[in-house]
Amino acid sequence: MKAIYELIYKDKNSNARYGKIHTNYGIYETPMFMPVGTLATVKTLTPEELKEIGCGIILANTYHLWLRPGEDIIAKAGGLHKFMNYDGPILTDSGGFQVFSLAKLKDISEEGVKFKSHLDGSELFLTPELSIQIQNKLDSDIAMSFDECPPYPVTYEYMKNSVERTLRWAKRGKDVHTNEKQALFGIVQGGEFEDLRRWSALETVKLDFDGYAIGGTSVGEDKETMYKMIEYSTSYLPEDKVRYLMGVGDPIDIIEAVIRGVDIFDCVLPTRLARHGNALTTYGKMNIKNAQYKEDFKPIDENCDCYTCKHYTRAYIRHLITCDESLGGRLLSIHNIHFLVKLTEDLRSAIKEDKVIEYREKFLKNYQNKE
Amino acid sequence: MKAIYELIYKDKNSNARYGKIHTNYGIYETPMFMPVGTLATVKTLTPEELKEIGCGIILANTYHLWLRPGEDIIAKAGGLHKFMNYDGPILTDSGGFQVFSLAKLKDISEEGVKFKSHLDGSELFLTPELSIQIQNKLDSDIAMSFDECPPYPVTYEYMKNSVERTLRWAKRGKDVHTNEKQALFGIVQGGEFEDLRRWSALETVKLDFDGYAIGGTSVGEDKETMYKMIEYSTSYLPEDKVRYLMGVGDPIDIIEAVIRGVDIFDCVLPTRLARHGNALTTYGKMNIKNAQYKEDFKPIDENCDCYTCKHYTRAYIRHLITCDESLGGRLLSIHNIHFLVKLTEDLRSAIKEDKVIEYREKFLKNYQNKE
Repeated sequence: MKAIYELIYKDKNSNARYGKIHTNYGIYETPMFMPVGTLATVKTLTPEELKEIGCGIILANTYHLWLRPGEDIIAKAGGLHKFMNYDGPILTDSGGFQVFSLAKLKDISEEGVKFKSHLDGSELFLTPELSIQIQNKLDSDIAMSFDECPPYPVTYEYMKNSVERTLRWAKRGKDVHTNEKQALFGIVQGGEFEDLRRWSALETVKLDFDGYAIGGTSVGEDKETMYKMIEYSTSYLPEDKVRYLMGVGDPIDIIEAVIRGVDIFDCVLPTRLARHGNALTTYGKMNIKNAQYKEDFKPIDENCDCYTCKHYTRAYIRHLITCDESLGGRLLSIHNIHFLVKLTEDLRSAIKEDKVIEYREKFLKNYQNKE
Repeated sequence: MKAIYELIYKDKNSNARYGKIHTNYGIYETPMFMPVGTLATVKTLTPEELKEIGCGIILANTYHLWLRPGEDIIAKAGGLHKFMNYDGPILTDSGGFQVFSLAKLKDISEEGVKFKSHLDGSELFLTPELSIQIQNKLDSDIAMSFDECPPYPVTYEYMKNSVERTLRWAKRGKDVHTNEKQALFGIVQGGEFEDLRRWSALETVKLDFDGYAIGGTSVGEDKETMYKMIEYSTSYLPEDKVRYLMGVGDPIDIIEAVIRGVDIFDCVLPTRLARHGNALTTYGKMNIKNAQYKEDFKPIDENCDCYTCKHYTRAYIRHLITCDESLGGRLLSIHNIHFLVKLTEDLRSAIKEDKVIEYREKFLKNYQNKE
């Protein structure tokens, strides 16, 4: 069975939606945050910990797995689920974002993108077809179309051509997509240009994908612009398909996007922040390395019931991070992912009570009052 | 209550002993392997994982905790157990070994050791009294006397003077040791000199400690010499007190030392090997980075029932280690510590059946047949 979205309830005071995604690995509620397991591992954590946190779908990066260990090894292992021991649903991206952000000396043609590996500089060539074929071998539950991810800002002319090409690439990818257990999502691009977003959305929908993603945000634009990009996109997407905002994990951005009709999110933010000693809390971001936490024996967030907050103090985690002990990053990763999973849980409750707008006000009020 | 050793059974064909250590955090069987939590964390692992592996006592390093976060912060947290969330017994070393191996520009006097911090070069002065006072504040279950750890080899004359000083230091430490819930162990030194080992053992025993450690092995001597050092020491130690061989974790060394009457061991070996992609197996040491494991979907050790071997393949762990993903070191740490804990479990069973010598033969035969 392909992953299928079910819209259950719409908030009466915004475009926020409560729904469910039915997958071969269980049914999961939306809005949902998906942690990122770049190299078939959500950094420092085991699958059991992800489950305990309450994660549903997790993400893995096609570009990274293509390079290491290679899709053939993962296929021989029996697919990504078996390879990494995760028995929940997995979404793979197309590799597009990494090619455009990590790789060097890009040469974009109609056929695909020629570039040099960020690891050893070797020359690589990724096409819409190859991206789908790799994802097929990885055997993820949801695959993404290969799109062009232009930097910000580019001219209207450049973006128009790019959107056209992304549409042609989307069709080419769909044509070679044969895995009947794997859903395939299209991606809406168009930068900050309303008519291009509209056109990209409508034309992508015509290709009839199993879900739709919004790309090209968080690329340097200001928040106002970002929220508009989201609005421009969701307005033209069908209600009966899931909407996925790629690469967004800031708590406020998640709330604003949910209000604008987005269902699922992914981001490296919680694990990346954790590695650098930062925690997401209901009071705002906390840098645990600050000297003020040296003798602070409270949990990271007194309003949190995650494993980390139940058992460890700020002083201990600060000590671990200061000493470069990886348990520190692990404990903060658990907390940060839990924070975003809990945020989406709270948003789901709020939607069902038509109170998402109120929830935003309350959240923002606390979040500014940094302890 | 202070930790107390109970001798239960002696192997009829060797000096191996089966016993129990009664602590405020439960009763644990010996022979036992204690993993090392240098900075109040057994690298990458949580206390729950250590318990699941079957660990009893764990070790923490006084020198490292003195420098970071400082013993006063740990005391304010309520002691080491609360600070690191470990509700099992903890042994702290004296700091001596680290001072003599890590620190720079040592100036050894009767009073103590003046040296420069390995972190920032700041000048520090550690004395037998201070070591005990720090361990007191850490509130470990077992504290160690502060000893001199000479390099190998040194002259007989040097070693004789060093043993004399270590005895005076042991007495000074004991005199200031007031924590009634904390056991205090003495340390036998004497290098490879039989009469000095004998003398050190007998004189240390006269001071009446709660247990006795054997120091000064694994400092560069060959295996024959090391095993003799152990024999020279255990021969003169009382049967009703526990014997602890410090810093030894090689599987063959553990077996040889158990045969010579040693009860407990500690070593960074399992976690250090893990970080570098090495696994301890019944077939010998395995470097998982080797290309031969690229498409090897067997567990690390088919004879092992640890969490890692139950859920992950060599190919996946190789991938993680190759990509510098810390889950790789974590999974191998679980496996390697489990390997040594299981080894001591097997040794206990063998002792109870008077079969330790047979066990050694069987173990060595497999261990040489590297897969």
